[in-house]
Formats: sequence, C-alpha cells, structure tokens
Amino acid sequence: MNMLVDGEWRTDAYQTTNEDGAFERGTTSFRDRIEDDPDARFQPEAGRYHLYVCRACPWAHRTLVTRALKGLEDAITVDYVDPYRGEDGWQFTPEKDGCTPDTVNGSDYLREVYVEADPDMTGRVTVPVLWDKQEETIVNNESAEIMRMLDTEFDDVAEHDVDLYPEGYQEDIDEIIEAIYEPINNGVYKAGFADSQAAYDEAVEELFDALDHWDSVLEDQRYLAGDRLTEADIAMFTTLVRFDEVYHTHFMCNHKLIAEYDNLWPYLRDVYTTDGVAETVDIDHIKEHYYTTHPDVSPKRIVPKGPAPDFEAPHDRDELPGGPPADLV
Amino acid sequence: MNMLVDGEWRTDAYQTTNEDGAFERGTTSFRDRIEDDPDARFQPEAGRYHLYVCRACPWAHRTLVTRALKGLEDAITVDYVDPYRGEDGWQFTPEKDGCTPDTVNGSDYLREVYVEADPDMTGRVTVPVLWDKQEETIVNNESAEIMRMLDTEFDDVAEHDVDLYPEGYQEDIDEIIEAIYEPINNGVYKAGFADSQAAYDEAVEELFDALDHWDSVLEDQRYLAGDRLTEADIAMFTTLVRFDEVYHTHFMCNHKLIAEYDNLWPYLRDVYTTDGVAETVDIDHIKEHYYTTHPDVSPKRIVPKGPAPDFEAPHDRDELPGGPPADLV
Repeated sequence: MNMLVDGEWRTDAYQTTNEDGAFERGTTSFRDRIEDDPDARFQPEAGRYHLYVCRACPWAHRTLVTRALKGLEDAITVDYVDPYRGEDGWQFTPEKDGCTPDTVNGSDYLREVYVEADPDMTGRVTVPVLWDKQEETIVNNESAEIMRMLDTEFDDVAEHDVDLYPEGYQEDIDEIIEAIYEPINNGVYKAGFADSQAAYDEAVEELFDALDHWDSVLEDQRYLAGDRLTEADIAMFTTLVRFDEVYHTHFMCNHKLIAEYDNLWPYLRDVYTTDGVAETVDIDHIKEHYYTTHPDVSPKRIVPKGPAPDFEAPHDRDELPGGPPADLV
Repeated sequence: MNMLVDGEWRTDAYQTTNEDGAFERGTTSFRDRIEDDPDARFQPEAGRYHLYVCRACPWAHRTLVTRALKGLEDAITVDYVDPYRGEDGWQFTPEKDGCTPDTVNGSDYLREVYVEADPDMTGRVTVPVLWDKQEETIVNNESAEIMRMLDTEFDDVAEHDVDLYPEGYQEDIDEIIEAIYEPINNGVYKAGFADSQAAYDEAVEELFDALDHWDSVLEDQRYLAGDRLTEADIAMFTTLVRFDEVYHTHFMCNHKLIAEYDNLWPYLRDVYTTDGVAETVDIDHIKEHYYTTHPDVSPKRIVPKGPAPDFEAPHDRDELPGGPPADLV
C-alpha cells in the first residue's frame, strides 16, 4: 500500500509482508467517534458527514451496507473512487461508470483529503473515510468503527427503524466481528499477498477452518448472532460476496467456492436479497479492482469471466426463526 | 518457451503471443513414424524405444496413459524430467520425488537430447519425446502421433489386448481429437497466456462452449466416440484431470469447475478409475509445474491448496452401454 509520510506521498511500498513472507495490514490513522451526545465534538446530524469509498473494497462496503439498511442515504453523502488503484493511490475519475468526483473537497486523489485533514499525516491512504464537512476533517477511517457509528448514533435521522447492534446480542456481535476478522476478512488477503508457501498455507488453512465453522453455525440459525441480522452479518457479507469471483481465483483461496457450502451459500443469498443490500454490490468494480490493481499477484491485469454466482436464487432461509428487521424485506 | 536455434540455446523467448495478445503454440520438429512394417525405418520392438516425459504435462501424459492401457511398460522405458521448467528448459533432477535421471543419454537438460538427435535442430524443446535407442535419434515429439503409434503399432509386444483406435470408430476419433484440440486442450493455455482481455475473452468463451457441448454429448454415451474408450478420451482426459486444480485458478478458466458439470465430472472419474490410469496422474507434479513455472502468470510461485477433487468417487457411468476394454477393469 502506498503511504503518506509526514504528508509526503511515497510510492515505493505496495503491500507489506514480514520476514516470513506473511502479509501484515497496517493500522488506520483516524479513530474519532461520532456520538449522540450534546457534549461530543462530532454529533450525528443529517448533511454533516460524508463517506469516501471504493465500491470494490470490502471494508468500505461495510459502511455502504449499513447506510442502506439504516436508510441514511439522504443524511450521509458518498463519493466513489476509481476501482483501479495505481501508483498514486485511490483516484477520483468521474468519467468512469459508477465513479464520482470528490464533491466535497474537489481533490483528484484521495491522499489530498488525508493531507487536508492532517498536513503531517503519516500512514496508509485507505477507504472508507468518514469526513466531517463542518470541521473539515476526517472523523474515522476504520470500517468496523464507522459501521458501528452509523448503526448506533444516527437513529434520529435514519429513515428505517433498524438496529443492527441490538441489546442482548451486543457481546456476541463484538465477538463474532473479532473472530472472523483475522481468518476470513483479512485471511483472504493474507493468502493472496503471502510471499512464502508457509505463510500462504497457514492463511488458507485458517480461512477454510473458519468458513467450515461458520457454515456449521448457520445450519440451525439464520444469522451469525442468531435470529437477527446484525453488524456481524455485514462484516461477513462483504467478504463472502467477493469470494467466488475474486478471492477463489485471484488470491488462490481455491479449496472451495462459497457456492459449495451448504449453509454459507444460501446465507449469502439471504443477506444479498435483504432490502437495499444488492444495490451496494458492484461486481464489475470488484473484479476490476482486484485483477488490475495487484500486478505482483495477477501481472496480466486480465479480468476473468468468473463463475457469476446467482445471488438472487431462492434461499429458503426464511424457514429458520427470525428474519430481517421489520422495516426491511 | 525457450528455443534451440541451430542447436544453440536461447532463453529470451518464453511463451509467445501475437500482436493481438493471443498465445500461439509453436510446432513440433520430429515427425517420423514407427510402423509395423518390415520395410519401415522405425519398427516396433520391445526395448528399442524410450519416452522422455514430464508428469505434469498434459501432452506428455497422453503417451503415459496409452502406454499403461496397452501394457507397454516393459516394452517402452520412460524417464521423467523435473516438473519445474526454468530458464534452461526441462531438466533431469533425479534427487527429486517422481523424477529420474536421463537413463539413456545421461544428459542434464532435455535440450541436449534434442541436439544429440540433430545438432542443427531449431525449435522448441518439448515433451513428450519418443527416442529410438537403436538409431540414437528422436522419432517423434508430437503427442497425438506418439499416442497413435503406441496404440496401433505395438500390438505384438503389448501385454493387454486393447485397441484404442478400433475400426468403425476411427473417423470419429480423428474428428474428436481435432475438435477438442483448439478450444479445450490448447484453449486453457490460450486463456492463461493471453496478453489482452480480448484474447482471453475469446479463448474462455470457446473453451466453455466446447465443454458444454461435450458435457451434453456424454449424457447419453459413456465415451466421447460412443460405447468404447478410445484415444479421444485420453486426449480429453489429460486436460480435464488438470482443470480444477490448475486451469481454473492459474489460467483463470474459472467460469465453472469440471466438478460442476453433470456428465464431464463422472466421465472424468470413469476414465481415471480405468485400470492403470490413476498411476499415470501425479497431481503434485502437475501443481508444482504450472504454479512455479510461469512467473508472468503466477509470480509468487506459490502452489495453492486446491479443491482436491475425489477422482475415485463412484461415477455410475457403467449404467451406460459399453465400457473399458475387456483386458482392463
């Protein structure tokens, strides 16, 4: 990943592996919180906040799904960068299908937004970015934290009465989000970016052990935390929906397709067909991003035909207890 | 592919694509024939001929399957090169599992065998090679022609009474071998080595159209040419058995797995479990070869876990008319 070092752009680092050839994800830089509290610096208000995302990125995608499920499309604006990330990092290319200009800061590259927020900023320029138009700074760029804020702090401006972090489930949700992060969400990257056979083997074993585990959990319950759709499902969904088209081939996570799992596959279709979710999925952007952006993985930059899973095929998961929030279908 | 140019080794050419980015396979150089005819230069005799093969190569694999089905293991000797093909081409590395020295010519690299046969040889150094120990030269290095010779000219020394090119089927067999060559056997390479999106798209469309076609043919008949196992099935088999482990991921032929086909998949298991065939399949060599030998396709040289298809699962194809030759199970 390219980096800002004291506000200066460095293009020499791409994705970093340690001395054992294992991929190590850098940390995010902005960790402030929007809070529904009159004393908070960042308070939830319609029209105040803005998301910068890439439609291809599974981390950014979490915030888009949350925004759709909550009905925050009017309250929180969004700009979409180009799915291709070149030497200069995420770029705004409004002429391209599904992309927008930077409607807030007018920048050409996302790194300019980071420097705008902090001229001495040092770190990776990543999506998602939650921008505060009032204070003209980045509130947060960590996907799970943004997901949580949109979910829990914006009920007064949200159009849907939807709670993705309900009482009685919160401990489980936090545990699941944590439990799936390393082996699954980040695991596909650890497999694909591994520079040694040992690092790849370890990542792939952990990945499929975890997928096997959650597949068995989903045999008797509709969602990861039980009978309710929660943030944990969003965190799982954005990885699963990319799996067969991208991770299976590009990152060589080819032991099984999600479509070969008895429960994960109908579960994926169940979440996909929940009201508002499908509109957040852009398979063309997803495929273009991965297959063209990592020349050390796929140097030919050719986008494969792919299995084109039918996410809208009937899933029969509604025979299990529970279901999506009443405000959604 | 590296080349001999007038007997000199050139390492600058790897695999060639034309100006449209499409892979173009070079031609083979030695096209003599062994004939069961007292006037022929090359006559079938036990102990006279030798095969140089790579266990990973689908073209070389055709000759190994034919040799096994005919029971020619004692009559025709074999040496196995290293599955990894580096800058210097196919190499003998007897210390490696499943590999042998060059027991006939004592060479370190296969190119030496080519130069031994013809000091002015110009062309690609490929497997299989059919070597004549008596005349000390290469008879032929074209896989379909070697398969045909082993099948039809060695009946006097073959241990099994097996005819893979039977009368009444010959025209069909020739047509099928020809029909599957471009879209399937060579098609996976055209997809994987394509340097342009257009060349890839065309190769993959032709490949899956052809797989769909033969899948439907195999719904009502046990083998490609009808009720008998023939050379056409060998030619198809050596591509299909590599497909899910290699071509699907490495060459991005990821629209479908063979395991997803209703008829091709049980057909593949049927041929695999025919007496003698399984012993010719070395999945480890196959995976090592492809994933480590093509840095312009898979630069990290990591061998994926793979789906590990169960080729020995019951196939129920014996409910269809016909079956393997009586001498085989």
